[in-house]
Amino acid sequence: MNINALYTDFYELTMSQVYFHKKRNEKAVFDYYFRNHPFEGGYTVFAGLQDVLEIIQNFAFPKETISYLKKCGFDTEFLEYLENFSFTGKIYAMKEGEIVFPDTPILVVEAPIIEAQIIETVLLNILNYQSLIATKARRIRQEAKGKVLIDMGFRRAHATGALFGSRAAMIGGFDATSNVLAAQKFALDVSGTMAHSFVQSYEQEIDAFRDYAQIHPNNSTFLVDTYNTLESGIPNAIQVAHEMEKEGNKLQAVRLDSGDLAYLSKRARQMLDEAGLDYVKIVASNQLDEWVIKSLKEQEAPIDIYGVGTNLITGKPDASLDGVYKLTEFNAKPKMKFSDNIIKISTPCKKQVYRVFDADGKFYGADAIALFEEEKVQKMLHPFDIRKKSDLKGRKQEKLLDLVMEKGKIVMEKKSIFAIADYSEKRLALLDLEYKRFQNPHIYKVGLSEKLKAIRDTLFLEHS
Amino acid sequence: MNINALYTDFYELTMSQVYFHKKRNEKAVFDYYFRNHPFEGGYTVFAGLQDVLEIIQNFAFPKETISYLKKCGFDTEFLEYLENFSFTGKIYAMKEGEIVFPDTPILVVEAPIIEAQIIETVLLNILNYQSLIATKARRIRQEAKGKVLIDMGFRRAHATGALFGSRAAMIGGFDATSNVLAAQKFALDVSGTMAHSFVQSYEQEIDAFRDYAQIHPNNSTFLVDTYNTLESGIPNAIQVAHEMEKEGNKLQAVRLDSGDLAYLSKRARQMLDEAGLDYVKIVASNQLDEWVIKSLKEQEAPIDIYGVGTNLITGKPDASLDGVYKLTEFNAKPKMKFSDNIIKISTPCKKQVYRVFDADGKFYGADAIALFEEEKVQKMLHPFDIRKKSDLKGRKQEKLLDLVMEKGKIVMEKKSIFAIADYSEKRLALLDLEYKRFQNPHIYKVGLSEKLKAIRDTLFLEHS
Repeated sequence: MNINALYTDFYELTMSQVYFHKKRNEKAVFDYYFRNHPFEGGYTVFAGLQDVLEIIQNFAFPKETISYLKKCGFDTEFLEYLENFSFTGKIYAMKEGEIVFPDTPILVVEAPIIEAQIIETVLLNILNYQSLIATKARRIRQEAKGKVLIDMGFRRAHATGALFGSRAAMIGGFDATSNVLAAQKFALDVSGTMAHSFVQSYEQEIDAFRDYAQIHPNNSTFLVDTYNTLESGIPNAIQVAHEMEKEGNKLQAVRLDSGDLAYLSKRARQMLDEAGLDYVKIVASNQLDEWVIKSLKEQEAPIDIYGVGTNLITGKPDASLDGVYKLTEFNAKPKMKFSDNIIKISTPCKKQVYRVFDADGKFYGADAIALFEEEKVQKMLHPFDIRKKSDLKGRKQEKLLDLVMEKGKIVMEKKSIFAIADYSEKRLALLDLEYKRFQNPHIYKVGLSEKLKAIRDTLFLEHS
Repeated sequence: MNINALYTDFYELTMSQVYFHKKRNEKAVFDYYFRNHPFEGGYTVFAGLQDVLEIIQNFAFPKETISYLKKCGFDTEFLEYLENFSFTGKIYAMKEGEIVFPDTPILVVEAPIIEAQIIETVLLNILNYQSLIATKARRIRQEAKGKVLIDMGFRRAHATGALFGSRAAMIGGFDATSNVLAAQKFALDVSGTMAHSFVQSYEQEIDAFRDYAQIHPNNSTFLVDTYNTLESGIPNAIQVAHEMEKEGNKLQAVRLDSGDLAYLSKRARQMLDEAGLDYVKIVASNQLDEWVIKSLKEQEAPIDIYGVGTNLITGKPDASLDGVYKLTEFNAKPKMKFSDNIIKISTPCKKQVYRVFDADGKFYGADAIALFEEEKVQKMLHPFDIRKKSDLKGRKQEKLLDLVMEKGKIVMEKKSIFAIADYSEKRLALLDLEYKRFQNPHIYKVGLSEKLKAIRDTLFLEHS
């Protein structure tokens, strides 16, 4: 990733200029967290960590960026500081692919405040988008069960953001992408079928199929809806599939891209089976999402492979995760943001998160936020409702925040996308079904340790 | 823009391999158009042209991409072709910033079919996203009237796509962006205020304001909602503004980022005015979009500057423009895509678009699509409803599709973003209000010339 440090909001620089001249570049701690699950769901998949760490490790202001900032009005002394800028702090984070919940620190930055501010925008930009898409993909995977899922969203993605979206889709459980650049950059499986233009370019549909099969004898998927799916596309596909058999080859699949996918897939399956082509798979695409796939499964549509585009890669209908980055400590003092809106009040202090497990090793349904130094949480308190508490004594707890960057260098092991996706899937399997349903999912509890809540309450009262 | 030719969907390459070996690389014509306005609106702003032409002009497969494609299984002969690939065709397009309507070719590609296919994905990817954002921005500008609009969406944008989104926002009428990299790359105005973390890092809110004012004496905006807007933020801002006056400086603005923006802006305005600070402007942000701004204006909220983030840069709630790229001619024969869904049927032939004007120079409300060689359209026919036709005789008509690329080289003049935005604004002024209202806008007519419709109908009947 070659992204320079102009990849930032302007105010990070104007604030930093003040810190610099006022000699206030003390150590700060920031939390990255979000407030609401996307898609009104019950879980979120954390993604983008490896990319963001690589970008931060190399974040710098090359010469041409300094001359640009000079034109923006920054003074020479501050620009000299920027010329030598690099991130020298620590970052703690949950594992990429982790199942995460609102108001819980997912990533913690500890660095001189100028450094911590200058990396804010890129951190939010990459993590918010990838977590959104990984979550969308995981919801689609949840409904598609063991069927093959292909990301076909490149053409509707937000420009070059597509690259990161395709990566995140794999973390969320997709099998392959149509995006060749993303496949190359992140070592993903790449996949493609055939466009309507290909079929149209021939006078006869069947000739398009024949030519394609000749060049791709072991890897052909025929698009069957250019003229009429059941009267032309499927019969022609069957004929060419039989011709392929004579050469010792097998047609891989037919693709439906319009019309009623449940009806057409059933009729197509029947026609293929009656022609002795039960091995030919059916690919479906056209405005799919987790809801449409759920419905197709309920209708027992015999679809083997789903191509999902726009709704996946743009994270519709939400299109964003509301992740924020809040100061929790500065110069060794706890800090919090106040608000008339109680849920917008941030939690102070450098923190650790403990995930609680039940006796059979599944998630108990509670993350306890504690002071960084605390070892496990005995009693978890609701952040605001004093009637609500949970006794966690004796329950297995797992520390979720690991040190991933130290002195500006990545100290975690790089994992393959497949390993991250696999971890994510295994973790989600530990979450009970009631948290995973799409409508009004059960709410996973997030609370504070007694010590943390006491500090928060003291600060809160001081300012009230 | 340094984007190589792997920025494509995999099927473009597998299809091209067939065309290559079957010696079918004949001249093709493709239309770029969309089917529905985003946001249930009555107009769309065309954006992204300059970027897409620059990318296409330099689209190539560098060595490392060839070795990657070899691993994907492409054969040596075809890879040799790709190694020498460049786009050599023609592109016709409407002007960037043009006000455009569904089912009308906005851009036409004429090239050997392999070249035309390989550029498909990047063309759709860049034009769909930028047109979506330029349209969203223009809708926001429509409601904000003459107030200042700042793009603050970087942290919620889809990763690196932010760059193109910020550019498109300016074409849609925004004044500045917080995105420093976009500002540098596209020569945009850059702007920023102050984060809550800055105020929090101080023991006293007023000290944060004082320090900021000292380093930025002529360019300070104080964020006043970290603790309590009316009881702390505004009084402190007033005090520091008075201190600044003693040094001969002026506070530029205060920023409201939470709470009821209508109520708070009125109270803040009153307090500032009573303190003799009528020159201090009010910036508002927090989940703004065209609807919220419309409501704030109706409530007479005294807001001077709107900071718009997530809803702008992600194009919420649609998050995508449904632009497509369809084959209309191959090897000198007209081509069309059929579909059970009548609105998905494409229009064949290389075409020109004529915009019709009324007597006082405004848009008449009709775009007539004709064969490329036709000079003006006398009678415009509805694409499917044979009862509907418009007599255009004697009306002023303007050709919308200009040659912008020839033999793979850009032949249009490069315009500044400001010139494009200005053109867009002037064109929108020619569109009557009934097309611009947000609810059930009037439908702008798009029809076919008699000659074009005759060819389309003949082809249509041949396949029915």
